[in-house]
Amino acid sequence: MQPAVKIAVAGLGTVGAGVLQLLERQAELVATRAGRRIVVAAASARDRRRDRGVDLSAVRWYEDAVAMAGDPEIDVVVELIGGSDGVALHVVEAALAHKKHVVTANKALLAEHGTRLARLAEEAAVALAFEAAVAGGIPVIKALRESLAGNRVSRVYGILNGTSNYILTTMREGGREFAEVLGEAQKLGYAEADPSFDIDGIDAAHKLAILASVAFGRPVDLRGVYAEGIRHVSRLDIDFAEELGYRIKLLGIARLTDHGLEQRVHPCMVRRGTPIAAVEGVFNAVVAEGDFVGRVVLEGRGAGAGPTASAVAADLVDIAAGRYAPAFGVPIHALRDLPGAAMDRHRGAYYIRLMVVDQPGVIADVAAALRDENVSLEAMIQRGRAPGEAVPVVLTTHETEEAAMRRALDRIAALEAVLEPPRLIRIEDF
Amino acid sequence: MQPAVKIAVAGLGTVGAGVLQLLERQAELVATRAGRRIVVAAASARDRRRDRGVDLSAVRWYEDAVAMAGDPEIDVVVELIGGSDGVALHVVEAALAHKKHVVTANKALLAEHGTRLARLAEEAAVALAFEAAVAGGIPVIKALRESLAGNRVSRVYGILNGTSNYILTTMREGGREFAEVLGEAQKLGYAEADPSFDIDGIDAAHKLAILASVAFGRPVDLRGVYAEGIRHVSRLDIDFAEELGYRIKLLGIARLTDHGLEQRVHPCMVRRGTPIAAVEGVFNAVVAEGDFVGRVVLEGRGAGAGPTASAVAADLVDIAAGRYAPAFGVPIHALRDLPGAAMDRHRGAYYIRLMVVDQPGVIADVAAALRDENVSLEAMIQRGRAPGEAVPVVLTTHETEEAAMRRALDRIAALEAVLEPPRLIRIEDF
Repeated sequence: MQPAVKIAVAGLGTVGAGVLQLLERQAELVATRAGRRIVVAAASARDRRRDRGVDLSAVRWYEDAVAMAGDPEIDVVVELIGGSDGVALHVVEAALAHKKHVVTANKALLAEHGTRLARLAEEAAVALAFEAAVAGGIPVIKALRESLAGNRVSRVYGILNGTSNYILTTMREGGREFAEVLGEAQKLGYAEADPSFDIDGIDAAHKLAILASVAFGRPVDLRGVYAEGIRHVSRLDIDFAEELGYRIKLLGIARLTDHGLEQRVHPCMVRRGTPIAAVEGVFNAVVAEGDFVGRVVLEGRGAGAGPTASAVAADLVDIAAGRYAPAFGVPIHALRDLPGAAMDRHRGAYYIRLMVVDQPGVIADVAAALRDENVSLEAMIQRGRAPGEAVPVVLTTHETEEAAMRRALDRIAALEAVLEPPRLIRIEDF
Repeated sequence: MQPAVKIAVAGLGTVGAGVLQLLERQAELVATRAGRRIVVAAASARDRRRDRGVDLSAVRWYEDAVAMAGDPEIDVVVELIGGSDGVALHVVEAALAHKKHVVTANKALLAEHGTRLARLAEEAAVALAFEAAVAGGIPVIKALRESLAGNRVSRVYGILNGTSNYILTTMREGGREFAEVLGEAQKLGYAEADPSFDIDGIDAAHKLAILASVAFGRPVDLRGVYAEGIRHVSRLDIDFAEELGYRIKLLGIARLTDHGLEQRVHPCMVRRGTPIAAVEGVFNAVVAEGDFVGRVVLEGRGAGAGPTASAVAADLVDIAAGRYAPAFGVPIHALRDLPGAAMDRHRGAYYIRLMVVDQPGVIADVAAALRDENVSLEAMIQRGRAPGEAVPVVLTTHETEEAAMRRALDRIAALEAVLEPPRLIRIEDF
């Protein structure tokens, strides 16, 4: 057997502890599969004394993770600190500068600096591996980069944020409102005290930017991702979705269009009966469509210590066995200069919910605004009657352009009988 | 860029033609991802003149595929002939003897000779790659071998035969009988003229034996696979399954038990709402359960020229890029000597359907037979009344041992009031 691979772990929170536990518990298994032992030789974290369930007595401890990245004995630096800048970035840069392989679970870092870091890794002839950064234990990066290597991908999409999916599932199953379920998720530890990252689509946008780069062989373009979260999805919308045969999911979607690559994260109505509609709770799923393979669906746990440690271990085994691919599947010079498509140019069907005063003529005014923008109605539901009071009116449209839809909605929002900002949810046809 | 990889393709049926088309259409893409061109330098098939939609004028043609495998110019032999013995086996053996990498889609070959061929490949220090042999374009082999490398797998199962799944789905959706749907599938080309391979579980058994080897790091053991097909599933059973909250699927299941590794292929009742229950028509799916990653589900097209070519191309790109793993994930000497568990020792819940004469005392006799074998009833349904005539009676049991269940069924089958052989379908709890 070849000499052991020596790794340094920066960041020993839940995920870091999970990685240490996996490497200890599965040491034999991992050594057999990698063809050599993987040994944790150094570590760095804020709190040295915390019990992480593993023996760290033989591990060299660094106060300064950046200094650790330069330790000449280390072959691979595992970055589990998190955050797009600061220490995490410095550790990864230092590791690559010292020609050490890097494994990271840090989606924010890759979404912000992925292309530049991949170039540094390529110049240093080392691996930059990040299976754990997207969809936890589900092997989406490897599948897109290696298993679909013979395909042109036309679309990749998925449920990339477990917290949002948990909230939407719980709202639907319990017939409950967003704020209440969010509060409960925070108590259960499924959502952060500051939940914006999850529920405003930021986390999903990071992951989508990475997925799109791997799937389309294009530089990471986080700025090109349109992102909208689940904050405004109400129980009413979930009920209407059920009635219309849909389920509401927060999806990240990257799709080739005539105008370039569309990257967007927003709540979607997806038809019940499609695989993605059946993915509930904290589970994640990614669907890729290739010209030869057709539709491939990958589903599993998108977060948590175990699944993330599993993905980190897979990257470590690949590196130890010497079988790593370029970060985004192709050399940096071969990344395609594929333009991004503006959200205004998006074409799709829409669900619109209005709260209107139940009085004659309102629907006529709404319909006129849509007609003037060439938005073609597919269906209209006005449930119940309450003359003079607020009632919900739901409209679904045929395929139309986002910009036209927005203009029509601005006009509709200005109508006196329309009481709240109109709610728009895009309908996706899978 | 490195020099081109030169490949020889043995067998140019639907899949072979698909591979040639992919390598022609995606030549640039594949070269960028592999870091070198992949060139079809030689080919062999029964009929040279058939139009395969690609230009073969620059390809060296061999009448004898085994001779082709020895061509010194060739780096990789792609075996797409099929069959567990004969030419396919000789081509693969010859290729390995000449230290050439082998890519194959041949599940029967691997199920019969996998361990021996993997040893030959290891001795020759070449790749034996077979992503296309199981579940078509779905990257199940790579996921189990590489992405789950840090996990102990406790169970792997899946819908491995698209023809059977198509028949079961069509029976359910149309309320139709097996024989009728099979006949139609044969007309549509979804089932072979001799359908035994598909509907008797043989094809699924081949695939399960391969999956189990990769998932559990164990020599391929086709003889250890219990196999039973869908021939005896009737519309009545499908209706009862729906009533009980189940769906009937032909599954291949490999599971670690106290008695060793269980490998079995048979119709199963799976609870509606589980991911596997939602996989319909010709789609395949594989579910793996690992101790760190949890449950991972992979779904897609399990057969056809496009998906199979996609899997072959992925193997070729990996080989061209030099990043191939041992055939079963670990060196041959490290394959575990894990005993096989006999089907008699299987423990699980059962669905039993009897056709009985509707007369007093029958249920008491049936219940007595079960009691005497310590089989505990969970539910009993006798639908309708037709004194003196045949009526279906359905029983479900709590977990019990297969041998006891069989003994009880033998006694029940011998009862005078029981008119047809009892039908048994295992209930799986996922």
